[in-house]
Amino acid sequence: MKRAIVVMMFLTGIHHAALTAGMSDSLSTPGAVARRFREAGLRDCEAYDLLSQLTRNAGLRLSGSPGSEAAIRLTFSMMKKRGFDAVRVESLMVPRWVRGPVEEALILKSGKRKAKSLAVCALGGSIGTPKGGITAAVVEVRSFDELRALGDRAKGKIVFFNRPMDPTLLNTFEAYGGAVDQRGSGAVEAAKAGAVAALVRSVTLARDNVPHTGAMHYDAAVPKAPAAAVGTLDANLISALLRKGENVVIRLRLSCETLPDAPSGNVLGQITGWEKPDEVIVVGGHLDSWDKGTGAHDDGSGCMQAIEVLNLFKKLNMRPRRTIRAVMFMNEENGNRGGKAYPKAPGRAHERQIAAIESDAGGFAPRGLSVEADSLVFERVLRWRPLFASLNAGDIVRGGSGVDIDPLVKGGTAGIGVIVENHRYFDYHHSANDTIDKVNPRELEMGAIVQALLCYLISEEGLAVEPASGR
Amino acid sequence: MKRAIVVMMFLTGIHHAALTAGMSDSLSTPGAVARRFREAGLRDCEAYDLLSQLTRNAGLRLSGSPGSEAAIRLTFSMMKKRGFDAVRVESLMVPRWVRGPVEEALILKSGKRKAKSLAVCALGGSIGTPKGGITAAVVEVRSFDELRALGDRAKGKIVFFNRPMDPTLLNTFEAYGGAVDQRGSGAVEAAKAGAVAALVRSVTLARDNVPHTGAMHYDAAVPKAPAAAVGTLDANLISALLRKGENVVIRLRLSCETLPDAPSGNVLGQITGWEKPDEVIVVGGHLDSWDKGTGAHDDGSGCMQAIEVLNLFKKLNMRPRRTIRAVMFMNEENGNRGGKAYPKAPGRAHERQIAAIESDAGGFAPRGLSVEADSLVFERVLRWRPLFASLNAGDIVRGGSGVDIDPLVKGGTAGIGVIVENHRYFDYHHSANDTIDKVNPRELEMGAIVQALLCYLISEEGLAVEPASGR
Repeated sequence: MKRAIVVMMFLTGIHHAALTAGMSDSLSTPGAVARRFREAGLRDCEAYDLLSQLTRNAGLRLSGSPGSEAAIRLTFSMMKKRGFDAVRVESLMVPRWVRGPVEEALILKSGKRKAKSLAVCALGGSIGTPKGGITAAVVEVRSFDELRALGDRAKGKIVFFNRPMDPTLLNTFEAYGGAVDQRGSGAVEAAKAGAVAALVRSVTLARDNVPHTGAMHYDAAVPKAPAAAVGTLDANLISALLRKGENVVIRLRLSCETLPDAPSGNVLGQITGWEKPDEVIVVGGHLDSWDKGTGAHDDGSGCMQAIEVLNLFKKLNMRPRRTIRAVMFMNEENGNRGGKAYPKAPGRAHERQIAAIESDAGGFAPRGLSVEADSLVFERVLRWRPLFASLNAGDIVRGGSGVDIDPLVKGGTAGIGVIVENHRYFDYHHSANDTIDKVNPRELEMGAIVQALLCYLISEEGLAVEPASGR
Repeated sequence: MKRAIVVMMFLTGIHHAALTAGMSDSLSTPGAVARRFREAGLRDCEAYDLLSQLTRNAGLRLSGSPGSEAAIRLTFSMMKKRGFDAVRVESLMVPRWVRGPVEEALILKSGKRKAKSLAVCALGGSIGTPKGGITAAVVEVRSFDELRALGDRAKGKIVFFNRPMDPTLLNTFEAYGGAVDQRGSGAVEAAKAGAVAALVRSVTLARDNVPHTGAMHYDAAVPKAPAAAVGTLDANLISALLRKGENVVIRLRLSCETLPDAPSGNVLGQITGWEKPDEVIVVGGHLDSWDKGTGAHDDGSGCMQAIEVLNLFKKLNMRPRRTIRAVMFMNEENGNRGGKAYPKAPGRAHERQIAAIESDAGGFAPRGLSVEADSLVFERVLRWRPLFASLNAGDIVRGGSGVDIDPLVKGGTAGIGVIVENHRYFDYHHSANDTIDKVNPRELEMGAIVQALLCYLISEEGLAVEPASGR
């Protein structure tokens, strides 16, 4: 009987595999599936319970840290417990940077002005300062061009990069993109100008004194200078003092250092496709986080949503046509070793990675999908728009997908990123404020539901689009 | 020269009045105006600063309370300071309910089970209990039908209404609508069944012990029973005890009472239209709040956005063709006296209220507009969709608009409500958690920006749609 229905549906062009694999409602349409995901997901909001476990039991998860190891064990066991297939860790080596106990910056006393402690933190990857710190006058710039124009005047100074994120932009990721060069390359540019350290305005729209860390890099051809972020209120204060013509001298002390690479891994689990087990849809996030908050939004959310996607299939007793694989990528924040290792891992040789989905913009209400793929693939996703619109996530655009899945995308896999309501994201991002109390259980779950639907549709219908017939 | 441009644009069908009234960019299109509102709004997020003042200086603002009076004075002065036209208070009388110092519920000790204090608060409008409280056994129901089916078994009891909001619905307002009858009519239905009090599960999706108040009503033909809300965790606890077959006896003590009506008022300010001053676009929220939090989302947000709408016009030196009027309505929560008074106020006789816009769903990121008007008006708003989509608020649907503006809508004014991302709203609504730390400055501002654009478009283009020519 079941087989007869399948054949009939195949002939009539309705061939959603879920129907053939244990779903009780044999008249399910994609719209009905979207509804079932929504109801099953929102009823329990399990992604939030998973995220509570992760943030409580693993905490901060910088690559190579004890927290990152705990997170590998925990997510392995979460997936095992839920009966996922082929749960495993794929080993890799990761950079190991540690903050150490000391990070402080002090504006020294000057005339009647008292000394003032600043809200700072080392940027990830920075070298430390000598034990006694680095003491130097501060020079403020808003761009690398401005720094270069200073000529010799930056020599021996601490360069203070103070260009804010542009608050007038609607998309905070665009505003972030317009400011983050100071964090990434500030130390190199400062050293090129003969400066002794870089102090960078936290890359955030928040007006507070919670410093935001994040990756910075060095250039082998340029001396290494230590780099720290400063809270936006203190950044404004330094700027105000300089504008008044004061000589601002800061003593910066950082104990951070880079240790030898450490063993780590990506964690994988899947529901193997009943028809095309070797065609894989990756749904993932990055398991590592910065070491200030507990990476609840960045990117505990994306990881727990990936597990919840598979969990929703299990709950609804749905077996997909193609393999859906949750991947907890390691080391997105400071090296992307996990993202780079995944496509090269031994298991990949006999598989086709047809799509990779990433949620790494925070666990906020989803608004749509950003498709990084060929035009015909984009057209295919666009046809599903009404289904996503029924979940309030109908903004389907072309754009970037995710850092972890970028190596897959470069290899031809269709990349799809989740677009979320992002006004709040950079208030928390890479700071002590990225904690679970900033996550709403329903918003987080909706992200999982949207990704479950996307996995379902790709699994059932594929991403290939037939060439249009000549009309 | 200016006049010549106006004439030319009129002839060519481009006739946006902003161009004629001080805007420097004489090539402004509606899209450019949307961008200017966005940039001017997001740069300073002034709505948030206004809301800080309101919540700090007026605090809770239940109709007739000292806080509500402070809010009237404060918003009057906010609008005066910003140079709005015709700033005034339109007087009216409001119900005056006070909570008083006592609200407590205790599950009495029974056998080995210790007494347990419950997280409760009186519902707005409830009578108090006798000083010594009301002590009675609890009977749980999930609907009025279930209560009626109990027959005599509710007699002398406290009826515990425990139907939760349906978490599986995407729209939390829909879920609220499916549960709020218990709060509004629970006391009447309980009394009809011979019960002595009503205890209602807080109408929220949050799992905590913060009780949520809100309006309830009595029926002149039925004895009055006191009514209180209980936190959802304690509601679950009571239910679990009853399921175990325990006899749950509660002592409820409430000191609330209704005092004589008190003088109050709606606060109005406007930018008078340069061409059609008597055609009025109302943009408003309700200034009163419940008395637990400080009504930051409900509806301090809507009020401050309305002031910010006019503020944005001022900032950009734009004078609208029609009058745009910010109205702080009083008493939405327990009587809607302000909403009812506005259309009848003496000033209205010589005006046409062509549209009324309300934001009363929280100061979250706007997603679109809900239009309560004739089909042709809806079509007109729908044509503006790309403009609102450029502000991430392109969901234009037919639906309800707002309680305050309902009397206007009933009189033929087009009503438009702001749709927001609402997953978090009922976590805070009518509870001690409705405070400004739950509001994001950018999300709040975006609501003001969307309403400013809507006011602009209605002001410039009107809402009348020409009848289609026979084709």
